Amino acid sequence: MLGHYKPLWLNENNHLVVLDQRVLPFEETTITLSNAKETIEAIKNMTIRGAGVIGNVAAFGVYLAARESKEDFSKFLILTGEIRASRPTAVNLMWAVDRMLSVIKEQIDDLSIEILKNEAIKIADEDCERTEKIAHYGANIIENIMLSKKSKIFNILTHCNAGWLAILDSGTALAPIYEAKKRGIDIHVWVDETRPRNQGANLTAWELSQAGIAHTVIADNTGGHLMQHHMVDMVITGADRVAKSGDTANKIGTYLKALAAYDNDIPFYVALPASTFDFEIDDGIYQIPIEIRSADEVKFIKGIDKQGQLQEIQIVQETSPAINYGFDVTPARLITALITERGVCAATSRGISEMFEDLI
Amino acid sequence: MLGHYKPLWLNENNHLVVLDQRVLPFEETTITLSNAKETIEAIKNMTIRGAGVIGNVAAFGVYLAARESKEDFSKFLILTGEIRASRPTAVNLMWAVDRMLSVIKEQIDDLSIEILKNEAIKIADEDCERTEKIAHYGANIIENIMLSKKSKIFNILTHCNAGWLAILDSGTALAPIYEAKKRGIDIHVWVDETRPRNQGANLTAWELSQAGIAHTVIADNTGGHLMQHHMVDMVITGADRVAKSGDTANKIGTYLKALAAYDNDIPFYVALPASTFDFEIDDGIYQIPIEIRSADEVKFIKGIDKQGQLQEIQIVQETSPAINYGFDVTPARLITALITERGVCAATSRGISEMFEDLI
Repeated sequence: MLGHYKPLWLNENNHLVVLDQRVLPFEETTITLSNAKETIEAIKNMTIRGAGVIGNVAAFGVYLAARESKEDFSKFLILTGEIRASRPTAVNLMWAVDRMLSVIKEQIDDLSIEILKNEAIKIADEDCERTEKIAHYGANIIENIMLSKKSKIFNILTHCNAGWLAILDSGTALAPIYEAKKRGIDIHVWVDETRPRNQGANLTAWELSQAGIAHTVIADNTGGHLMQHHMVDMVITGADRVAKSGDTANKIGTYLKALAAYDNDIPFYVALPASTFDFEIDDGIYQIPIEIRSADEVKFIKGIDKQGQLQEIQIVQETSPAINYGFDVTPARLITALITERGVCAATSRGISEMFEDLI
Repeated sequence: MLGHYKPLWLNENNHLVVLDQRVLPFEETTITLSNAKETIEAIKNMTIRGAGVIGNVAAFGVYLAARESKEDFSKFLILTGEIRASRPTAVNLMWAVDRMLSVIKEQIDDLSIEILKNEAIKIADEDCERTEKIAHYGANIIENIMLSKKSKIFNILTHCNAGWLAILDSGTALAPIYEAKKRGIDIHVWVDETRPRNQGANLTAWELSQAGIAHTVIADNTGGHLMQHHMVDMVITGADRVAKSGDTANKIGTYLKALAAYDNDIPFYVALPASTFDFEIDDGIYQIPIEIRSADEVKFIKGIDKQGQLQEIQIVQETSPAINYGFDVTPARLITALITERGVCAATSRGISEMFEDLI
């Protein structure tokens, strides 16, 4: 076991150490990223993932890029450009890189390197504060729904992983769950396995196990049936990019769960920090770029064999092609509300612009 | 390669040989069922599956039960009762057993054994005729939709497997696809992998490969995104039980696809033979029993390793429970129409009762 609940930290050489999320829950190992290229690779191959943590790793990547660029500002800009383009959908990545670039002048020297280091740490610290607030507002919603419930167990469904592995320090979607548990609510989580990469089964189930929160892993196909049969009190997910209209890009399959929640009058919440908004975009479905990842993520799967060894096996025959869209967009009309660090707002242009007027 | 497109046949000893659907597409092996118990086990462990073929195997199982019961009619009835109860959701199973019992008097002798054998063969032959008609009516729908399309490729999404592995001789959902291909339509199929047992990736993709039909395997989470982006012209699935209201039980996750089709104005068809109706049931959501299968089907998955050997690996950690509902129910309001051997009818009490008045 690792000694703390953090997916990344700086080591004594000021290199970035990250928990390798590709092999959880079966192996708990770390990888050290010592330069920008390694950072980019870790983002692309999903050693780390989750909108917030991608932003954090990118910010530290900008710092590492500065260290290796020395006086060469052009080299630094090329590297930061590559970091910024390492994944297309989650907007926190671009936001974090841009923020890092905004704090230095157009040169790399010891002072600017120090400033970049401090800014990356500051972004991480601020993320932690934000998730505390998201936890607070989200747990209030859970408490309110509990008031009208007969059963003492609160059943919440989540898709993918938006816990502390994804967003420092307790996640977005999982933050209210952790907080509700602290407040003594008897919570049970339906964990969508979240094919193709199974971030639900691999990461959310692992986080919840560690926190002693009751949960059940389900195939992604299952949520509709559970909702039809009153086995879900609330759905909560994170987000990778939210348009100013409230349209929300999140892990592929989120839209299907939102449809089922809507069809069964179950509240569907999206939890996110303000850095996940893209105020340049109005129509999420047509304007948010959706990453297409390798078909091999559909055709192969990792797990442990009878000897407990991590193995990858092929689950789709050679002759069949596959395609792997990483995200989908849930139209704002299906979202009950957004839970942010500033409070809860309607997933509408008006609701968002009223709460985040200063950022638009 | 097997020499014919049939998932089951009688061998020279009048034992039932079935294609082992648990190891497709990676291994093509057969299993011989020589008595009722082996038949029950093959149905339960999904050596064979699919509403129609379950019915066929059950019918031959009744014949095998008669052979081993000899003069003992009570033993025969107990065995047939067990066959009838081997899986709860697909109604063709009960229908086939009841039909088999209806053709003999209350005794087992050489004549009744011969009658049972012939009846099981007759059911299979009739299934083949029915799927030809379903193919015809379904392909007509595809042709009609093609008329209003600009693109020359017809994109169809299907969930689970309702091809010839599931329903003799060309399936229900796949029958119109095979027929459309014969009619020269340039068809492409989005194949939901269909977790947890991956009948889509394992069986539908295999069938389509064999028939030379273009297809792409997708995670079950993907269909909503494809539909939002006009990449699906029609959804077609099979059914395990259809209430007289049109509510349709099919593989878990079908409901989610129906919601997405409805939300994007995409026609959603269910293809079925009349034997899949349950005229005793009106409210599918509350009255159709939904099978809960072993959680291990979620926690373990089969595929081939780097040496090409079939292997099962564990993909959910020990400490996390899982639950495995086999089916869900799609409300009739989401279904464009039903494609049956008698023609196409509305998924409404009126549409169904008008077309199947004589059976109700």
